[in-house]
Amino acid sequence: MPKNLFFAHSGGVTSVLNTIAASLITTAKQHADAIPKVLIGQDGILGALQENMLDASQLDDEALRRLAQSPASAFGTCRYKLKSITEHEAEYRRLIEVFQAHDIGYFVYNGGNDSQDTTHKVWQMSQEMGYPLQCLGLPKTVDNDLVGTDCCPGFGSVAKYIATSTLEASLDVAAMATTSTKVFVLEVMGRHAGWIAASSALAQQRPYDPPHLILLPEVTFDPEAFCLQVQQQVAQHGYCVVVASEGIRDAEQRFVAEADGTDAFGHKQLGGVAPKLAQLVTQKLGLKNHWAVADYLQRSARHLASKTDIEQAQALGQAAITQLLAGATGKMLTITRLSDAPYTWTIGDCPLTDVANAERPLPAHFIREDGWHVTDACRAHMRPWIMGEAPPTFAQGIPEYMRYEGPLVAKKCAAWHLA
Amino acid sequence: MPKNLFFAHSGGVTSVLNTIAASLITTAKQHADAIPKVLIGQDGILGALQENMLDASQLDDEALRRLAQSPASAFGTCRYKLKSITEHEAEYRRLIEVFQAHDIGYFVYNGGNDSQDTTHKVWQMSQEMGYPLQCLGLPKTVDNDLVGTDCCPGFGSVAKYIATSTLEASLDVAAMATTSTKVFVLEVMGRHAGWIAASSALAQQRPYDPPHLILLPEVTFDPEAFCLQVQQQVAQHGYCVVVASEGIRDAEQRFVAEADGTDAFGHKQLGGVAPKLAQLVTQKLGLKNHWAVADYLQRSARHLASKTDIEQAQALGQAAITQLLAGATGKMLTITRLSDAPYTWTIGDCPLTDVANAERPLPAHFIREDGWHVTDACRAHMRPWIMGEAPPTFAQGIPEYMRYEGPLVAKKCAAWHLA
Repeated sequence: MPKNLFFAHSGGVTSVLNTIAASLITTAKQHADAIPKVLIGQDGILGALQENMLDASQLDDEALRRLAQSPASAFGTCRYKLKSITEHEAEYRRLIEVFQAHDIGYFVYNGGNDSQDTTHKVWQMSQEMGYPLQCLGLPKTVDNDLVGTDCCPGFGSVAKYIATSTLEASLDVAAMATTSTKVFVLEVMGRHAGWIAASSALAQQRPYDPPHLILLPEVTFDPEAFCLQVQQQVAQHGYCVVVASEGIRDAEQRFVAEADGTDAFGHKQLGGVAPKLAQLVTQKLGLKNHWAVADYLQRSARHLASKTDIEQAQALGQAAITQLLAGATGKMLTITRLSDAPYTWTIGDCPLTDVANAERPLPAHFIREDGWHVTDACRAHMRPWIMGEAPPTFAQGIPEYMRYEGPLVAKKCAAWHLA
Repeated sequence: MPKNLFFAHSGGVTSVLNTIAASLITTAKQHADAIPKVLIGQDGILGALQENMLDASQLDDEALRRLAQSPASAFGTCRYKLKSITEHEAEYRRLIEVFQAHDIGYFVYNGGNDSQDTTHKVWQMSQEMGYPLQCLGLPKTVDNDLVGTDCCPGFGSVAKYIATSTLEASLDVAAMATTSTKVFVLEVMGRHAGWIAASSALAQQRPYDPPHLILLPEVTFDPEAFCLQVQQQVAQHGYCVVVASEGIRDAEQRFVAEADGTDAFGHKQLGGVAPKLAQLVTQKLGLKNHWAVADYLQRSARHLASKTDIEQAQALGQAAITQLLAGATGKMLTITRLSDAPYTWTIGDCPLTDVANAERPLPAHFIREDGWHVTDACRAHMRPWIMGEAPPTFAQGIPEYMRYEGPLVAKKCAAWHLA
C-alpha cells in the first residue's frame, strides 16, 4: 500500500547534506506509486513535532539541481536531542500522531550518532504502538566519527578544503618567512576526533612539506613540548605550519581553548585554540605568527567539494529509497570500502544500535609514534575521500545555491509545544 | 642593445602574483633578442641586494603552467622597505652595482604603495648615477588600496573568496539558527581600507540577505550601537551574519583587535577582531555565536580565483614587457576601467609618484548612510572584479601548485650585509 515518506536533517550541516536529500527526492519521484509524497521536516525533527513540513513536490528540476549543489541544509536542521522513551514518551507518541495524520510509513533521518539513536527509538516506539513505520538512518558528520561506515558523507569535502587551505596558506608563509611570519596556526573542527586535523596532511607531497605539526585531540597537549617542536621546525625549514584540532586537551583534560580561565575583569577568556597557541608562540618563543580559524567556512565549503564525497552522497540518497522499498528497516546505511587501491566502495548497512552514541577517533596506527603528525597509512587511507572535483555552477561571480522558502503543508493535528 | 631584466615581488602575497610573473616571463621569452634573461630576486628586493637571483629560463613550459596557477610567491617576497636615498644611499648604489654586474637594463617591481616608492627611488638613483635603467612598477595588494588603478590584481580573487565564504557560512547559520548559533562573525583583512569587507556584500542577492552588518575601517566602531544592531537583525531574520574588517577602530582611534589591553598576568590580550566582537555578543546579548578568522586562507585562495582577476594579471605581465620595449619608464602600469556595463578595461599607467605611499579607502558613496553596510553603487562597481571562474588543475585531490627550488645564478659581486 502506498505510504508517504518523512525525511529530516539533524545536527550540524555539511557540504553534501542537500546532495543526499536531492538524490532521495529524485529517486522517490521515480517510485511515486509506492511513495506518493516526500514530506521534509523544517528544522529537522522539530518539523515533525511541530507539524512544519514541506512537500518535496514543490521542488522543480531547477530547484533540485540547485539543492544538490548547495551546502548546509536548505530546509533547516536542529540541535534537538529527543529524550529517552521513558523520560519523554509523549514526544515519541506525538511523532507517531503526526506521521499517522499524514499517512507516513517511511522515516529517514540523516544525522550523526545522536540522530541514529533517535531513529532507533522512533522505530522501537512504532513497533510498541503497533504503527507500521520503516525507519532508516543515513550517516552524516564532518567529524567523520561514526562507527560502521568507511567515512561519513560531508567529511571528504571538508578534508579537501582543509588540505587545500593548508597548502595555500603554507605557500603564503613560505614565501614571506625570511622577513615576516615564521609560525602559522590553523584551527580546524572535529570535536573529539582528529580526522579533520589529520586531513591537512593530504597537503603534503614530500615528508618535510607543511603542515609540520598536527595537534590531534587523541594526543595530550603539552605546551612546553609544543614550543620546543615549533622552535625545531622553524630552525629546520625557516617557518612552521601548525594545524590544531579545536578539541585538544592538556594533561588535566582541560580543553586548550578554555584553559586560561577568566581575565582581570572576571570575564571568561576568548575561546579559540589558534589564538591560544599563537599567544604561546609569541610569549615563549618571540616568533612573529599569524593564525586562522576556519570554523563554519570549512563545513559549508561546497565550492571545493570532493567528487567522491558527492558520489557517495548521491548513492546514499538513492539507496535509501530502493532499500525501503525492499523492506529494510532499523538500520543505518553505510559506505563500505571494498578495496584500497583503486578505491572501490558500495552501500552497506549496520544496525542502528551499533552506531548510536558511539564515537570513532583516529585509530592509533594513523598517529605518528611521537604524536606530532599522522602516518603514511593514514594519508593513504584518507586520500581517496578527497579525490575529484565537483564545483557548483556560478552566476554573478558566486555559486548558485538555494534555501527552501516555499509553503509548508497544511496542518492536521493540534499545536504542539516543546517540553 | 639587449639588456637583462630584473623582476621581484614585494610585500604581502596574493593569488595572482605568480600569474603576473608567468605572463611576464613568457612574453619576455618571445623577445629574447632584446631581453636575453629575466633574473628574479629571491625574497623580493633582498634578492637584488644579496645577489640571490634565479634565471627564469630554468622554468620549462610545465613549470610556467604551474607557476601561473600557484598562489603566494614561488620565488619569495619580503617586507623590507628601502630607506630614503639620503638615509641609505649605499643600498641604492648596491642595487645598481648588482644590476651592472648582471647587465640589467630593466627593473620591474610588483608590489603595493611602499614598493612603488622604492621603484621611483631606484629610477631616480639610476639617473643620478648615469646608469641607464628602465623602471616599471606593477600593482598588487589584496587590500585594493592603491590609487591610480581601477583595482589591484589579487583583490578580485580575495573578493570572490570572501563573497563565496560569506554566502556558504550564512547558509550554515541560517539552517541551524532555530536551535543553535544566532550570530556569526567573519573577520577579514584589508588594513585601513574596507574593500575586502565590502566584497562580502557580493554574497547578497536580495537586500535582506546576509551579511546583515559590515564593519568597515572607514566607520568608527561603537560597541553599544553594534550590540543594538545585532539584536535588531536577530529579531528580524532569526540570525545575524557580521563581516568585520581587521582594521576597525573605536572613537579613541584604538584598534578593536587591541582594545582590551593586558590580562591579569600582564599579558597582552589575544588579537583578533572576531573573537572580540563575539565576546561582546556573548556578554551583552547572551546570544550563542561562532566566529571565523580567514587570515592567510583568503589571500592565497587560488582555488577560487576570479577569472577577471587572472586575465588582468596576465595582461599586466605582457604589457610590462611590451611597454619596456617601447621605452616606458618611471611609471606604474594600471587597470583602466573603460565602461561599467559591460565591464571593459585596458592597461594604462600613472606616474610612480602618484601611487607611492598613498592609500585609497572605500569612497564615501560606497558606504551606506548609517555606516553598517555598503551601497548598491558599491556592489555594482565591485561585481565585475569577481566574475568568472579559473580553477587550477588538481592532482591527488589537491591543486597543482609550485615553488621554485632550483639553482640561483652565480654571484659576481662581493657579499652584502643588510643594514
